[in-house]
Amino acid sequence: VTGMFNHAPREYVCPFCLVAKGIIRESVHSRDSDIVARNSAAMALIASHWRPRNPGHVIVAPIAHYENLYDLPDEIGAAIFSLSRRIAIAMKNAYRCDGISTRQHNEPAGYQDVWHYHLHVFPRFAGDELYLDDNPNRLTRVEEREPYAAELRAALGAEQ
Amino acid sequence: VTGMFNHAPREYVCPFCLVAKGIIRESVHSRDSDIVARNSAAMALIASHWRPRNPGHVIVAPIAHYENLYDLPDEIGAAIFSLSRRIAIAMKNAYRCDGISTRQHNEPAGYQDVWHYHLHVFPRFAGDELYLDDNPNRLTRVEEREPYAAELRAALGAEQ
Repeated sequence: VTGMFNHAPREYVCPFCLVAKGIIRESVHSRDSDIVARNSAAMALIASHWRPRNPGHVIVAPIAHYENLYDLPDEIGAAIFSLSRRIAIAMKNAYRCDGISTRQHNEPAGYQDVWHYHLHVFPRFAGDELYLDDNPNRLTRVEEREPYAAELRAALGAEQ
Repeated sequence: VTGMFNHAPREYVCPFCLVAKGIIRESVHSRDSDIVARNSAAMALIASHWRPRNPGHVIVAPIAHYENLYDLPDEIGAAIFSLSRRIAIAMKNAYRCDGISTRQHNEPAGYQDVWHYHLHVFPRFAGDELYLDDNPNRLTRVEEREPYAAELRAALGAEQ
């Protein structure tokens, strides 16, 4: 199947597909320990790269490979929405953040850089300058992410 | 029904509820002519305030009043996703933009400023600096928005 306005190179090794399958590669930063929730359609994991003042933000992605919003079937989009909402509520309870915002990027001009649809869910804090801070995203260590994953899993468990 | 982490003042007159009902008020910038699609669950309209280099961006919102992501039922979230995807594809065809990105804000610290859930769908252009440009959003004139609405309606019609 060829998608709409796709940009992945021909022999693309998709990092989110590897993560969904539990395959570890040096070149892929995410690990099983980053996953905080998954079902047959979607998964949520602590992002490997963080904004300066929004630690522990989460990526929600489909299990199956779709490059972008244009390609994502409605029933999987519904699962992405539902999981992002659960993550938002869990973040409020676990991180005690002041707000939540989400963003989702398509194509290089839209700031997409991994060629598998993903939605960012950010914990927000007063004065965090999520948009205006031009510092690059920082690659985090696995061990740094683990306490955030543990807190979110506990909060997700408490939601049910 | 009281929502989660709501911030609307007690006697809030909700602009998106007025738009959904077709009621015109001086204080509300959006008009019927901004609406490009609607169904029983959700509506899409040209935003009244634009970023400097992303003209004609669209707001997707539920018809019923829910303040934020935490409160939005999954079935309405599914309708929001589906409509946002249709809008994204229509924008690609109508605006010939280089990409699409979406964002959604909850609570004041998360940059929410209208107390009715809404998702922004932006046409993206190379070098548009959607995030780093600190110019404020510009209030547009109704007549300025009409050609964008007309183009999107035509593209949405062609999608079906």
